[in-house]
Amino acid sequence: MSTIKARTLSGFNDYLPQQMAVRQHLLKIIQEVYESYGFEQLNTPTLEYADVLLGKYGQEADKLVYRFNDLGGRDVAMRYDLTVPLARVAAQYQDLVKPFKRYQIQPVWRADRPGKGRYREFTQCDVDVIGSSSPLTDAELITILYEVYTRIGFKQFTVRINSRQVLFTAMKEAKIPEDKALTVIQSIDKLDKLPKSGVEAELKAKGFSSIQIENIFAALGRAKPDPYLQQVLEHLEMLGVDSAFYRFDPILARGLDYYTGPIFETVVEEPKIGSISAGGRYDQLIGRFTGKSMPACGTSIGLERVVDVIVENGIWGDIAPSVTQVLVAQLDPALESATVGLSQELRQAGIRTELYHESAKLATQLKYANKKQIPFIAVYGPDEAKNEMVLVKDMKSGKQKLITLNQVAAYIKGLLP
Amino acid sequence: MSTIKARTLSGFNDYLPQQMAVRQHLLKIIQEVYESYGFEQLNTPTLEYADVLLGKYGQEADKLVYRFNDLGGRDVAMRYDLTVPLARVAAQYQDLVKPFKRYQIQPVWRADRPGKGRYREFTQCDVDVIGSSSPLTDAELITILYEVYTRIGFKQFTVRINSRQVLFTAMKEAKIPEDKALTVIQSIDKLDKLPKSGVEAELKAKGFSSIQIENIFAALGRAKPDPYLQQVLEHLEMLGVDSAFYRFDPILARGLDYYTGPIFETVVEEPKIGSISAGGRYDQLIGRFTGKSMPACGTSIGLERVVDVIVENGIWGDIAPSVTQVLVAQLDPALESATVGLSQELRQAGIRTELYHESAKLATQLKYANKKQIPFIAVYGPDEAKNEMVLVKDMKSGKQKLITLNQVAAYIKGLLP
Repeated sequence: MSTIKARTLSGFNDYLPQQMAVRQHLLKIIQEVYESYGFEQLNTPTLEYADVLLGKYGQEADKLVYRFNDLGGRDVAMRYDLTVPLARVAAQYQDLVKPFKRYQIQPVWRADRPGKGRYREFTQCDVDVIGSSSPLTDAELITILYEVYTRIGFKQFTVRINSRQVLFTAMKEAKIPEDKALTVIQSIDKLDKLPKSGVEAELKAKGFSSIQIENIFAALGRAKPDPYLQQVLEHLEMLGVDSAFYRFDPILARGLDYYTGPIFETVVEEPKIGSISAGGRYDQLIGRFTGKSMPACGTSIGLERVVDVIVENGIWGDIAPSVTQVLVAQLDPALESATVGLSQELRQAGIRTELYHESAKLATQLKYANKKQIPFIAVYGPDEAKNEMVLVKDMKSGKQKLITLNQVAAYIKGLLP
Repeated sequence: MSTIKARTLSGFNDYLPQQMAVRQHLLKIIQEVYESYGFEQLNTPTLEYADVLLGKYGQEADKLVYRFNDLGGRDVAMRYDLTVPLARVAAQYQDLVKPFKRYQIQPVWRADRPGKGRYREFTQCDVDVIGSSSPLTDAELITILYEVYTRIGFKQFTVRINSRQVLFTAMKEAKIPEDKALTVIQSIDKLDKLPKSGVEAELKAKGFSSIQIENIFAALGRAKPDPYLQQVLEHLEMLGVDSAFYRFDPILARGLDYYTGPIFETVVEEPKIGSISAGGRYDQLIGRFTGKSMPACGTSIGLERVVDVIVENGIWGDIAPSVTQVLVAQLDPALESATVGLSQELRQAGIRTELYHESAKLATQLKYANKKQIPFIAVYGPDEAKNEMVLVKDMKSGKQKLITLNQVAAYIKGLLP
């Protein structure tokens, strides 16, 4: 039989144990902060009927949706974000208690060109409120972002805040016809990837005159927060968010069609990977399913990008190098039953314990513990067995000590952090 | 704009917050047990090149793989299990320290006919060892299953244990040609879904004579564990697994092609949903990528089925009815800043706190807390504010008490479990 090449698709990642340790630690922080504000978890399917997802993100985004016919000939699509599935859920289960405060942590798929910080499969950590039009809601979501990034240990990040009303008012002042406003906003959205001249060229290609383009930038330049956004900003202060970490930014646009009110995103200076979180208010999206508008607001943290920021800036140093806390060595088949018993006893004491899979030379087992960065090794060989003692060795310092069999669990527990 | 019907695909589930609470609690137990044996987490992509997945499970299984051409024309497939992706990882990253003890908890997709306990998207919780041919490894994996189910609180379950060697020996005794053995095993595998007569009919349709079929069942009836399996069973005793919860079962077959040694699965009497976990040894699978055989063994717990067993047997009663521990009411817009401050103070004390999104009648907010089963409500209205007191009400007993503002966090913390 010929062999198959072991490889992954471009834009799709394996996460090996050391990477998973960072992801898990980060997820724990995110989940704790979300739950501390009373948000509850939701999961939705990977595949949806295509019409559930399409026609809500905008034309450019729709092209990036993974879509195919399943074996039953159904037109299906893979989750592109967690917001549209939430809107579908809110419409489908109308007896959900409102405000429905939910969080959701699941992968999404976009057939985008892979690049730094841009993957075809990535994990979003969303937090949304359905059924509240209070500006406190929008402010609470921004506060949650602030808390997550602060708890991670970020010293530098900025939440840029704007609103669709600010943008639409500026378009009106620049005399852009109403039905052209969204396409202008989509070009403006590219200002963080393209130079201003690039955005101007794109607007020209879309048929806008030089004077119109000049008017757009002039109007954006003198824009002020609309009354609702002003209230959101006041609530941020009330919630104790340090004003060094957010600012009103009238050129922030966000590309997705479904936003209707305040919009926000978080950026860092290093590394250059675009926004690490984004969100906003989308009061008309649930109505696409129900015919009735329903206030809604949310934000999403991009797990992989935040991990990139943590790793590239060395924020956490070396975390959790090994799940296993102690390796129980096996030197002699005649002592197998005793070492198996010892390993079970250590586990029952709450110590994460690995038993070496077969009798082997101690050197081999020390080498294995070293490679896996296991902090301690416990040896119960023929010499130790004579006196019912266990040799416990600290793999880092090299120090070792003989401990009686019935005290070894307590002794090792005392060595652990 | 016309509305879109909010609906999900058959075989795909939403998991609402109360269901997620059960799933999360179960995942915590599974993860803790896996890690207590020193297993580390891995994640692999949802999509793989189709040739990575196909041709390893068997013809019937291959038909159930979700497969399509992506936008770049690549022949891709959705993860069908976690074992083949692990084999691909073991082949692709050859410097992984062996034995590589990994666990992996991710959804998989099968275009099967949906039914009770059978979904098209479901979550597998896999635990595997790559690089060990010790019978202790197989036994440790079965011990892990035993520990997970015992910790959940299952009073009744059986791990059925057999091996491919036992089956092949029986086929030889029944004079079945070697190249026909696997198709017979695939029919035998259906004995837990079909009556014996149904399996006999299927074997007849496959061209086996009545005498051959009789011989097959006779040979299986007198089968004994092979020497390797015998050692696995001895190690189970050594590891302290109660023999009431496992048994040698020569008619256990498991459908997947890739198994080469011991195989096992866990069944419960109620509800009738097929196996809740399955696994075995697959020493030739990694060789499909590398050309060299590599010992490997693993098992997989089906998350949704285990949840079904927990829920249908009422094993956990009512767990975690609400993430939020206290609702801070808002009665008066003039006190908004103070209630916002109170809610932040409670959160900082480690209490999961929800602030009602806007000023409203107390009755409305009590109704909301009731519906969401939030255990406590804290009221700081005009009357309470006069004396800088907070009214804390236990929603279940109806008891309430006035507490001074600076002691309320400590007081509520004392009420929590």
